[in-house]
Amino acid sequence: MAATTTGLKLYGIARSRAMRNLWLLAELGIPFEHVKIVQTYNKTLPDEVTSRDTEFLAINPNGRIPALIDGDVTIWESMAINLYLGRKYGGPLGPVDLGEEGQMTMWSFWATNECEAYAITVHESSMAKSEDWQQTPKAQAAVEHLDAPFSVLETALSKTGYLVGSRFTVADVNVAMVIFYARNASALFERYPSVARWYAAVTARPHFQLVMKMREG
Amino acid sequence: MAATTTGLKLYGIARSRAMRNLWLLAELGIPFEHVKIVQTYNKTLPDEVTSRDTEFLAINPNGRIPALIDGDVTIWESMAINLYLGRKYGGPLGPVDLGEEGQMTMWSFWATNECEAYAITVHESSMAKSEDWQQTPKAQAAVEHLDAPFSVLETALSKTGYLVGSRFTVADVNVAMVIFYARNASALFERYPSVARWYAAVTARPHFQLVMKMREG
Repeated sequence: MAATTTGLKLYGIARSRAMRNLWLLAELGIPFEHVKIVQTYNKTLPDEVTSRDTEFLAINPNGRIPALIDGDVTIWESMAINLYLGRKYGGPLGPVDLGEEGQMTMWSFWATNECEAYAITVHESSMAKSEDWQQTPKAQAAVEHLDAPFSVLETALSKTGYLVGSRFTVADVNVAMVIFYARNASALFERYPSVARWYAAVTARPHFQLVMKMREG
Repeated sequence: MAATTTGLKLYGIARSRAMRNLWLLAELGIPFEHVKIVQTYNKTLPDEVTSRDTEFLAINPNGRIPALIDGDVTIWESMAINLYLGRKYGGPLGPVDLGEEGQMTMWSFWATNECEAYAITVHESSMAKSEDWQQTPKAQAAVEHLDAPFSVLETALSKTGYLVGSRFTVADVNVAMVIFYARNASALFERYPSVARWYAAVTARPHFQLVMKMREG
């Protein structure tokens, strides 16, 4: 291990939920080893390790990326990894007390339960590259399901522009990276100006842009 | 507010995800006010407050139960509520360090993401009261999806009988209350003896039994 690392290892490519963790790690500015693990369907080179290979299953038996190793602690689940990183290394990006910690955990579960499946449907629909993807029944139903949670998000963000503690935190990273999947649902963002403003602001951050380049690279 | 309360209020009936929180609160033995909020489809009396009524939407704008108020902190999402309660009031049921906290958060997201939707399908199928519900394509597909996460759970539980820190914690409550929905998938439990032993042990705890009675009452 290089002398500059803290012993932190993040497993998973940017084009996966590992992007959430790569973004936060970049914001935190702490050294870590990025171990490239790809999904089986993204394997293009014979020596690439996939999430279903034995050596990775020893780290995450679910065969999913991302995973984090920090000394003797192993954590899976991208949301849990970010909440852990926020608590341990986050400074002002992490919670300052148990109330904020509870709120950050709440928003992370909220994004998972209320938004993620529908947002991914929007993402997959928009990736189809068909010009009228927003008019397909599948995309329309997903956007319709997202209306109620976007309304909740709108109210929360209309107060201070951020989710917890009137500042940019792990909660914004975790929620924005779910809303990310719905980013092409233009009509939805138009209906919720505080959400649109917040999403534009947090994704304009240089560390997000950096990780987007990793994703596209 | 009665002098015996700590200011904690838990909103939601036992026959909902609030059961997770009612069980943990019972284990913790701390006083709290239980505010009966019902789902719209469970409303039977004219004065019952539902999760879609204005007075509850002021607490949880998503219109979902449970919700927790602890002084000036409001938290929705049953998993987040239990993780918060564990941190703040849990003693040995909560995490002793950030590594354990990360693991408890990880297992809670894991149960949500890997198990919950399929477990609920099993639950709904078994509630149909048809004798051959386990043979329906829907139930069989759900059980098939649960096989991989049950295998992961089996390995984790085969070591110490518990998920985190070799003792009963919030992680066991949160995961068991998702596995609960799959409890009637007998063949699945037969394949995973450590899961079956753990599930039997944690649900034999008097506080679980108490909340089951509230659920059925």
